[in-house]
Amino acid sequence: MFNKILLASDGSEHAIRAVEKALLLAQNNSNAFIEVVYVVDGDKSKADVLQNWNAVDIDFKRKEKLAFTEQKLKHAGVRYEINILHGDPGPSIVKYANEKVFDVCVIGSRGLNSLQEMVLGSVSHKVAKRANCPVMIVK
Amino acid sequence: MFNKILLASDGSEHAIRAVEKALLLAQNNSNAFIEVVYVVDGDKSKADVLQNWNAVDIDFKRKEKLAFTEQKLKHAGVRYEINILHGDPGPSIVKYANEKVFDVCVIGSRGLNSLQEMVLGSVSHKVAKRANCPVMIVK
Repeated sequence: MFNKILLASDGSEHAIRAVEKALLLAQNNSNAFIEVVYVVDGDKSKADVLQNWNAVDIDFKRKEKLAFTEQKLKHAGVRYEINILHGDPGPSIVKYANEKVFDVCVIGSRGLNSLQEMVLGSVSHKVAKRANCPVMIVK
Repeated sequence: MFNKILLASDGSEHAIRAVEKALLLAQNNSNAFIEVVYVVDGDKSKADVLQNWNAVDIDFKRKEKLAFTEQKLKHAGVRYEINILHGDPGPSIVKYANEKVFDVCVIGSRGLNSLQEMVLGSVSHKVAKRANCPVMIVK
């Protein structure tokens, strides 16, 4: 069984489909625990501050992005935890995955910023390459 | 549950670890069916013919590479099938995965030809990018 499941999410459509697959992995397994990580990009973080008047707004917007994910996890009755990290998404997820040790990492194939991904390579590709655990890439 | 599982294998160490993860996916699921595909590369196929005297030898060597995988599947008591394809590994696996429709494709992160992969990109990366189903990459 895959007990310790890391779900890397940016709240995008692909990430929502990734939740469904993470839940399939956790199905009928009372030991399953899903740890969701959402990475606030360094650049994005600065833009958020410039565009919003206060930290409460920023925090609210970030939480809003994960609301649907959290709803799905709650509805499935699985044990879960949501963590917000700051930094460059790819390396941040890899660092987290390798330090905490997971049975599997589930991630959407494309995130919110498709143009950047076409140039720099997708976050999912970076994670699949550098994380020590098996990585499930969801379309 | 993941019922229809495609296991792409080249008999390498990474592929053997991929079998273990495919079996974890099939665990406690009586509907699980693992379809193993082993792709005989076009170039490799010609080299095999030049180095070996008869087709029986070639066939034997190919089957030998999958023997350990088959042993593991048999021992686990899971339903499985082994298919040998011919062509370029990445595109052949993608075509097979997309035509037959699977719940998940499990593949090792690196195959037998690491030098070629460093230049051309790994087969697993190509599959993760182009297969329509979720792809689990195993280290």
